[in-house]
Amino acid sequence: MKVDLNSDLGESFGRYKLGLDDEVMKYITSANVACGWHAGDPLVMRKTVRLAKKNNVQVGAHPGYPDLMGFGRRYMKLTPEEARNYILYQIGALYAFVKAEGLELQHVKPHGALYNAMVKEEDLARAVIEGILDFDKRLIVVTLAGSRVVEIAREMGARVAQEGFADRAYNPDGTLVPRSRPGAVIEDKEEIAERVISMVKDGGIRAINGEWIELEVDTICVHGDNPKAVEITAYIRRRLEEEGVKVLPMGDFIK
Amino acid sequence: MKVDLNSDLGESFGRYKLGLDDEVMKYITSANVACGWHAGDPLVMRKTVRLAKKNNVQVGAHPGYPDLMGFGRRYMKLTPEEARNYILYQIGALYAFVKAEGLELQHVKPHGALYNAMVKEEDLARAVIEGILDFDKRLIVVTLAGSRVVEIAREMGARVAQEGFADRAYNPDGTLVPRSRPGAVIEDKEEIAERVISMVKDGGIRAINGEWIELEVDTICVHGDNPKAVEITAYIRRRLEEEGVKVLPMGDFIK
Amino acid sequence: MKVDLNSDLGESFGRYKLGLDDEVMKYITSANVACGWHAGDPLVMRKTVRLAKKNNVQVGAHPGYPDLMGFGRRYMKLTPEEARNYILYQIGALYAFVKAEGLELQHVKPHGALYNAMVKEEDLARAVIEGILDFDKRLIVVTLAGSRVVEIAREMGARVAQEGFADRAYNPDGTLVPRSRPGAVIEDKEEIAERVISMVKDGGIRAINGEWIELEVDTICVHGDNPKAVEITAYIRRRLEEEGVKVLPMGDFIK
Amino acid sequence: MKVDLNSDLGESFGRYKLGLDDEVMKYITSANVACGWHAGDPLVMRKTVRLAKKNNVQVGAHPGYPDLMGFGRRYMKLTPEEARNYILYQIGALYAFVKAEGLELQHVKPHGALYNAMVKEEDLARAVIEGILDFDKRLIVVTLAGSRVVEIAREMGARVAQEGFADRAYNPDGTLVPRSRPGAVIEDKEEIAERVISMVKDGGIRAINGEWIELEVDTICVHGDNPKAVEITAYIRRRLEEEGVKVLPMGDFIK
Repeated sequence: MKVDLNSDLGESFGRYKLGLDDEVMKYITSANVACGWHAGDPLVMRKTVRLAKKNNVQVGAHPGYPDLMGFGRRYMKLTPEEARNYILYQIGALYAFVKAEGLELQHVKPHGALYNAMVKEEDLARAVIEGILDFDKRLIVVTLAGSRVVEIAREMGARVAQEGFADRAYNPDGTLVPRSRPGAVIEDKEEIAERVISMVKDGGIRAINGEWIELEVDTICVHGDNPKAVEITAYIRRRLEEEGVKVLPMGDFIK
Repeated sequence: MKVDLNSDLGESFGRYKLGLDDEVMKYITSANVACGWHAGDPLVMRKTVRLAKKNNVQVGAHPGYPDLMGFGRRYMKLTPEEARNYILYQIGALYAFVKAEGLELQHVKPHGALYNAMVKEEDLARAVIEGILDFDKRLIVVTLAGSRVVEIAREMGARVAQEGFADRAYNPDGTLVPRSRPGAVIEDKEEIAERVISMVKDGGIRAINGEWIELEVDTICVHGDNPKAVEITAYIRRRLEEEGVKVLPMGDFIK
Repeated sequence: MKVDLNSDLGESFGRYKLGLDDEVMKYITSANVACGWHAGDPLVMRKTVRLAKKNNVQVGAHPGYPDLMGFGRRYMKLTPEEARNYILYQIGALYAFVKAEGLELQHVKPHGALYNAMVKEEDLARAVIEGILDFDKRLIVVTLAGSRVVEIAREMGARVAQEGFADRAYNPDGTLVPRSRPGAVIEDKEEIAERVISMVKDGGIRAINGEWIELEVDTICVHGDNPKAVEITAYIRRRLEEEGVKVLPMGDFIK
Repeated sequence: MKVDLNSDLGESFGRYKLGLDDEVMKYITSANVACGWHAGDPLVMRKTVRLAKKNNVQVGAHPGYPDLMGFGRRYMKLTPEEARNYILYQIGALYAFVKAEGLELQHVKPHGALYNAMVKEEDLARAVIEGILDFDKRLIVVTLAGSRVVEIAREMGARVAQEGFADRAYNPDGTLVPRSRPGAVIEDKEEIAERVISMVKDGGIRAINGEWIELEVDTICVHGDNPKAVEITAYIRRRLEEEGVKVLPMGDFIK
């Protein structure tokens, strides 16, 4: 049994600081680094890649919509051609820092509203994956476990990592309960850890209505926004290891 | 005798079109492609790289200040760390398109006010070249022929292409006469061609005061902004070939 | 009988030029001036307001999504609070130039995808109109003739100008046929003029399927993108005047 | 004896939070509100103006260079025409929120590198002040006490508020000691308060070399970046009042 722990990092911008990257980097195996469109700037990108290197954390690109003001969390209607090339641009930009630091790029995880829109729009999903494969056919596409994007990416010949969310309630159809609904975000450390272990060891989780959903999960999304989030991340990691689960970078086991 | 012809391309942005890229691409050997900061966007970058490929033109990055509103033509005071990483970001972004199209990146030519500032500020020049070498030690640095940047780049172990300007008057110290001065821009096709031939065959040119300046020129900057510029570029190429000068990409002869 | 002729102007940006503003300004009565978000910059705004002043053309704000790369033509999901304040920001920015030139602001016409989204999303329409009224309760809201936005704006106490499109085919429900469909854009000068006259004098127009639709039209959207568009605009104006229709700024007759 | 206390506020952007605006607003009399170019966005602007209203604090515009990534702290070479219209744009944008909340705009204080550049470049200073007066001849220009900008603004007929810095060491010529030098920033609460009182009551201050410099100060720049800064601001206010100095908005006493 094995799993990767990923987190969105490098989301500071200019004078604006966000996230306890130094802290959370100690507990994860894969870092999704913002590429300057929804967050991040070249200084932040360099620093984040260096920090990942120091902590032996694998680096992936975390491209988003061209919307710094909305932090990439607002849906934008893109054409497939736009999506494909926007992704490619951002992957390349991050790759420069990865290359400068002598590392390799492991994966790509689209950010925020783009991640969500891919689950709903097949054309968009396809275009984003084309952008990823345009750059490198070995890059791992990180997407919602059990979603249609998993199938699409596989049909297109991509390596795929299915992602589970440690602190989010699921609908019976495997989608996430929107943050606006009561019970959507789980805050109890113990409960979060139990859910992660359920995903990894039992291959599924209870939906918000109590129904069992099967989920094959390769990587778990964890957070480092604040001290409590870091503590939960550290706890998830400890609990996984206590349960005999190997926590290692997705690139080590995704075919 | 040999020389490269380079031009700044891919400077359209969104709905805004600039330059007769399709036309000028027929006569040049190296394209400097804007990277989205002073001009260019991902769709334009992809299209421009494809156009270069189709015309067997070598591709270089054309990074600039983060100033779309000023088209990268306004001086900005950057720290060396900012300059280095801003360059790296933009090189990577362009590289993604070059890689997607199965090409290699040949050179980097900083744009506009950044190009000029490097000639005056050693720290900045050094930082920009570090950014270039961070990405790839084989990338050719294109800079003003005879300038201090040439020496700095060589000391740093970079491959350097010295650039001459076909249509610009020179001061006796080898710098360009500012566009605001009378006689700064040469418009006569014949005169421009003669000056290019003088640079390439005689190793120098007459300054605006009539003095002879020695210039070792590897590449000539030509334009494609309007039909007349394209015509001049075509004429320069024809005249060079008639004079027995080989016109070929800088990567073929820069050591 | 009277009608206003409006056109989207001031859409250049930095080095990028768009539109024959000098030409089209001669034939219109109201200018919708871009506010720097989807197009336009402060120099362009100043110049456009001056040009309007010189031509006795009334000025309105033409605010759009924060999306220069997409020219404001891509849908973005905004919260009502975002929409309201984004509009307010842009109106104020343009107002500064109007005030500096000793003019008054006559109207606000949202741009592109935002204009279209208002027709479909009541919450958005309401929020945009709130932003307009926040600034000045006398500002005229320009929106699609016959649309739900007309009613909403009136309920909210706003002055409304109903807009007809000179060169676009209509669906039987009064919406515009999307540009992607055959026959969506009408190019024949004579036909365009006939349609405008039909809207103004007969109070309606034939939909694409031949059905008659009633439209109360206060202002007609005309274009100045290219010489042909300017010619059509000039022709519409002449034909309207020949038909005895008074062409005058919407502010002169909207209550 | 009277003085105004001003602070730079509304510098958050999108998801990025900066400054303890709620706290510092209690102790100041004038708020300089960022206008979306170097910091701030429409939601932040609205919220900040409302907060000022609630606290009876007068509002001014705080326009900066178009450089969010550099927080407006990097010098950019602008033409006078650019500077004038960039300022006008930003004043108008902020004015919209001020008007929507039923307030009036009191002053304009240029931000960061632009503020500093005005002290060195007369053309720039003149252009910025033209932009301010273009909008409203009664707007107060806030600038460095004793600087050449004070004279220029007065010659141009502007109302001027001379600004002193509570926590910064001065050179004997009245300029600020650059932050990079030792002793440039004063951190001791008591010392800061003494310096403020010296400026207000004694009409001057000791320069870093001990020399006495005369300064006529109308407003003191205070900070709210962190809890300590807020505490110092509160302390300055208390001490001024204990000394019998009236702390009130600059608009109440600047002619």
